[in-house]
Amino acid sequence: MQPRLDLLTLAVPDVAAARRFYVEGLGWRPVFEVPGEIVFLQLGHGLLVGLWGAAELAADMGLPAGAVSPGGGLSLAHNVGSPEEVRRCLDDAVAAGGRLLKPAQPAAFGGYHGYFADPAGIRWEVAHNPGWAVADDGTVTLGPVDG
Amino acid sequence: MQPRLDLLTLAVPDVAAARRFYVEGLGWRPVFEVPGEIVFLQLGHGLLVGLWGAAELAADMGLPAGAVSPGGGLSLAHNVGSPEEVRRCLDDAVAAGGRLLKPAQPAAFGGYHGYFADPAGIRWEVAHNPGWAVADDGTVTLGPVDG
Repeated sequence: MQPRLDLLTLAVPDVAAARRFYVEGLGWRPVFEVPGEIVFLQLGHGLLVGLWGAAELAADMGLPAGAVSPGGGLSLAHNVGSPEEVRRCLDDAVAAGGRLLKPAQPAAFGGYHGYFADPAGIRWEVAHNPGWAVADDGTVTLGPVDG
Repeated sequence: MQPRLDLLTLAVPDVAAARRFYVEGLGWRPVFEVPGEIVFLQLGHGLLVGLWGAAELAADMGLPAGAVSPGGGLSLAHNVGSPEEVRRCLDDAVAAGGRLLKPAQPAAFGGYHGYFADPAGIRWEVAHNPGWAVADDGTVTLGPVDG
């Protein structure tokens, strides 16, 4: 598993309130959003931050709704090139002392993913998302996933 | 305040255990560390992740030790070029609906900083750190701070 963070997902109690602050308040432009559900902001070279409901993030991790606290609950994502690499990274993490939370499997976004927790309980998603593209200047675009 | 995340600090219960996982387990090389206290990893173009004790992170924010939970407590940092910009960004954040946690002031690392919370309670540090340098290829170096 290479040292790279692609997406930081923050669990918020109210996605609309988070959007008002970052988009309307600070003037940051969403890269992609599903109104009332999730907002993605580009905050670095190839780096997105997602603002998502705590219950939805917990469900995506395969955890009960109360397992992720709003206002701090988070997920760090590491993107790779294939489902095979998702499995290999999860194996690497477990071999390094991590705990498997969600085995590698097809993901709701159309790609393939799994989750592990580091020794502190911090959750990482390892994902293969064929719709995620990073341009030479670091700009991320999220497109439809084929297959 | 520009849309940019420079440092993600994760509150961990045990810095040595976190180091064993990321550095010895996954093989990620620290950019900078103070043994037993804090470890910085480079996880993107110009992006560091810091692994720090929850009590120390809370103290840096000017909050009581129990205010930051290990295993999920976090701080997002935004670097700027001067103390004046620190003050301006904090004003921007408050004007956008954020809550000031720690007013702009000299920081323990030798620079200048302050903290605000977004509407979900997620904490951002706005910092001026003259010892922080980003090379053209995105590599971050942390050097001594003069003055």
